[in-house]
Amino acid sequence: MSLLVTGTIGIDTVETPHGRAESVLGGSACYFAFAASLLTPVRLVGVVGEDFPQEFREMFRGRPIDLEGLEIRKGAKTFRWQGRYVGDMNSAETLRTDLNVVAEAPPTIPKHFRDAGYVFLANTHPAVQRSFIEQLLSPKLIVCDTMNLWINETRQDLLKTLALVDGIILNDGEARLLSGESDLIRAGREVLKFGPTFAVIKKGEHGAMLVSPDEVYVLPAYPTTRVVDPTGAGDSFAAGMMGHLAAIDRFDAAALKGAMSRGACVASITIEAFSLSALTAATPQTLAERLAQYKAMLSFD
Amino acid sequence: MSLLVTGTIGIDTVETPHGRAESVLGGSACYFAFAASLLTPVRLVGVVGEDFPQEFREMFRGRPIDLEGLEIRKGAKTFRWQGRYVGDMNSAETLRTDLNVVAEAPPTIPKHFRDAGYVFLANTHPAVQRSFIEQLLSPKLIVCDTMNLWINETRQDLLKTLALVDGIILNDGEARLLSGESDLIRAGREVLKFGPTFAVIKKGEHGAMLVSPDEVYVLPAYPTTRVVDPTGAGDSFAAGMMGHLAAIDRFDAAALKGAMSRGACVASITIEAFSLSALTAATPQTLAERLAQYKAMLSFD
Repeated sequence: MSLLVTGTIGIDTVETPHGRAESVLGGSACYFAFAASLLTPVRLVGVVGEDFPQEFREMFRGRPIDLEGLEIRKGAKTFRWQGRYVGDMNSAETLRTDLNVVAEAPPTIPKHFRDAGYVFLANTHPAVQRSFIEQLLSPKLIVCDTMNLWINETRQDLLKTLALVDGIILNDGEARLLSGESDLIRAGREVLKFGPTFAVIKKGEHGAMLVSPDEVYVLPAYPTTRVVDPTGAGDSFAAGMMGHLAAIDRFDAAALKGAMSRGACVASITIEAFSLSALTAATPQTLAERLAQYKAMLSFD
Repeated sequence: MSLLVTGTIGIDTVETPHGRAESVLGGSACYFAFAASLLTPVRLVGVVGEDFPQEFREMFRGRPIDLEGLEIRKGAKTFRWQGRYVGDMNSAETLRTDLNVVAEAPPTIPKHFRDAGYVFLANTHPAVQRSFIEQLLSPKLIVCDTMNLWINETRQDLLKTLALVDGIILNDGEARLLSGESDLIRAGREVLKFGPTFAVIKKGEHGAMLVSPDEVYVLPAYPTTRVVDPTGAGDSFAAGMMGHLAAIDRFDAAALKGAMSRGACVASITIEAFSLSALTAATPQTLAERLAQYKAMLSFD
């Protein structure tokens, strides 16, 4: 079943204790698209400026990522982000953000993308997320991300969006902020009251929790010492989840848990190199092998 | 195979956001003994004072816990600890410690306890842990705990003890302090250089990691919103592990992973009520049911 992602396409400059990547391809929609394409074809919706390097466009070639929704806007400049991870690399310190085209009108979903069944709305203003939802013809499963900025500044808008989505994927700090609950299980249950039928709370190196009306479970992160650049881990997790759900065209409880496991594995691949390097080097076989290791790790008698 | 524990037997007063328990039975050896007794018979070695209430002794009745190693020392007073958990209850704030008999000579392992195959040395001075090891006749697996105090104040002594044990169970902060590594996998590997063939790093609500020369894995905590009193969670985890290993009389890689799963489940039972209440109410069936749920949680396609 078709999978569509809307989100940011940007040019990142990232420093970590392992080095520096200068003006590399980044953005939530890119991480998502490359990661999900290991599992299923992806329709990408996003906007860049005229300065978007042709070589970045070339990176998508040969992958099941449909770029018809990639708008190259005349007279606009591409979103840029510069950040730094220090110490345990648990969170990025933003050094500079140039919103550029992201501060303008959002892109439109192309006509024949609108029948997408599975949709991931990466982090952006909740009203913009809603405008994307309104363009969809027959979505089966809509899942969104959000961030502290929208929870703090546009809470009512965000609640309107949450009433329209089936699931939300957010990190532990965001879940606590949105719910007012410090315990993550309670936080997840509060979030469900806003509309979604499931909430996935990402805990970084500590894995991720799924909360639904019927169940709560935690799956650990795939343990690795090769954390080179955590950028995109969250979007990759979402991509692993949504890619799996779209591929099997189911989102019952068992499907969601399978999806969580793919999320953990894809995210662990992403962070092993700067930018999209590890993801673009990976194949469905890479992911299948990691999934087998992950499954073995969680098996015991 | 026989399981022996040495550790503290104390009288605790604990406050948490859920209430207060005044002068209740506590101490690492008690938590361990009650928890491990859900899996296998336990030989307890510890010392209390003349003030040790008869009703506490009664609590052991009917359980497979051999109290021959419980010394009631004349003229001495029992160890007392008073602590408080606030907020997310991730760590205890110690309000008062009366070492009492714990500051005196350690107890002796009774003669016919000395052939124990599986031995857990709960947290105490590393030289005391070593004196226990010297009394053992034919240990198959010795595992110890420790704490920041010994890592900081008696490091050389601790390293001598680590050279004699097969495994160590410690929390994330202790692992970082002992190893000088912030990354937990690296921390675990550094700890192995001191002698143990495996290190278990407990991460509280985030589960536990096992590091051995051949593998690294993480199992999550059993998710619960019913955290009433976290006291004894770590000793219960160790008890679940050691109880399982002693019960099956194996400590190969597969056995250790099964042991980790029992540790997670037993610890989750302990924290659901004050003091030893939840553990004493539990039966092997309670644990078996929780283990089945835990296993189901970690199964996916």
